[in-house]
Amino acid sequence: MGRWQPDSRGRLQEAALALYSERGFDQTTAAQIAARAGLTERTFFRHFSDKREVLFGGSALLQERIVAGVAGAPLADGPLDAVGCGLAAAAAMLGEFRRDLSRQRHVVIAANPELRERELAKLADYAAAVAEALHQRGVGEPQASLAAEAGMTVLRVAVERWSSGGDDRDLADVMRDSMAGLRAVAGGG
Amino acid sequence: MGRWQPDSRGRLQEAALALYSERGFDQTTAAQIAARAGLTERTFFRHFSDKREVLFGGSALLQERIVAGVAGAPLADGPLDAVGCGLAAAAAMLGEFRRDLSRQRHVVIAANPELRERELAKLADYAAAVAEALHQRGVGEPQASLAAEAGMTVLRVAVERWSSGGDDRDLADVMRDSMAGLRAVAGGG
Repeated sequence: MGRWQPDSRGRLQEAALALYSERGFDQTTAAQIAARAGLTERTFFRHFSDKREVLFGGSALLQERIVAGVAGAPLADGPLDAVGCGLAAAAAMLGEFRRDLSRQRHVVIAANPELRERELAKLADYAAAVAEALHQRGVGEPQASLAAEAGMTVLRVAVERWSSGGDDRDLADVMRDSMAGLRAVAGGG
Repeated sequence: MGRWQPDSRGRLQEAALALYSERGFDQTTAAQIAARAGLTERTFFRHFSDKREVLFGGSALLQERIVAGVAGAPLADGPLDAVGCGLAAAAAMLGEFRRDLSRQRHVVIAANPELRERELAKLADYAAAVAEALHQRGVGEPQASLAAEAGMTVLRVAVERWSSGGDDRDLADVMRDSMAGLRAVAGGG
């Protein structure tokens, strides 16, 4: 926090998360975020369409990576193993973010019903896209939907554990561990 | 549709779902719903706080039933078996609704982003309540969250299959079958 960062986008994200945490999302304006980052409002809107975009801007790319991971899984893989390849791709992308910022993002979203509903809708979109990628691999219903949604549960639980500091390991490790946890729960009753 | 029903609440629900389907949720007013049901607007508001309540009014009771099912599961049951007891309770309640109305409800919600986000938030609330019930049974994290959320996936997929007519059996059977599907997907890779 406060240390020099070369990129405007990163500075704006950091400033926005700090303000959302301190004042609440609804009470923060784009102008305040820009000022906190030492940038102009015009620069803010060059990077983000609105203040919600700061929280959800990466979701289209994330969905693309997850789907590519599923589609690129070995053909012999079963549906949940293929979803695991998608989650590995997600972990590679999300694991590059600073853990404290990811944690702040989580807390801000959890505190605001509208943001929480938006986050859940994004996860549902990922699940639908993953189910479609599984259909392309020849997986039928309800297997595809069950594997896709169970996978998004693993993603959510893993990112929450990782960002909350409840688990010191890399996100990729936490993700694998959460997937193993799901398999154990489903297998062991 | 249109056949005589003794209860005002049921007539209002049926009228509301018909109008939401025909005109869209946003274009329908409480007055129109009451008129369609042959009742007064005052009667509408005696049963529902607003037109969204028609779609989500049963959710508190449903959550209560699910949690009671989990809490009442045999002590020897593992986490996902306990969740299965909660889902059986949900199936007993939801299975009493007419399948065509359940289908209409699903289509109306799917067509409206705000309603869809609300529905996902309800499912997330059920999952959080179920995870808490599992904690009370001594289940730790992340097992409790994984089992709870996987269970809500099973619920969603089963209700969708049942109401869409993709499966002729009772909701309770479709629910058991979806749970078996999840176990197969998670166990078989």
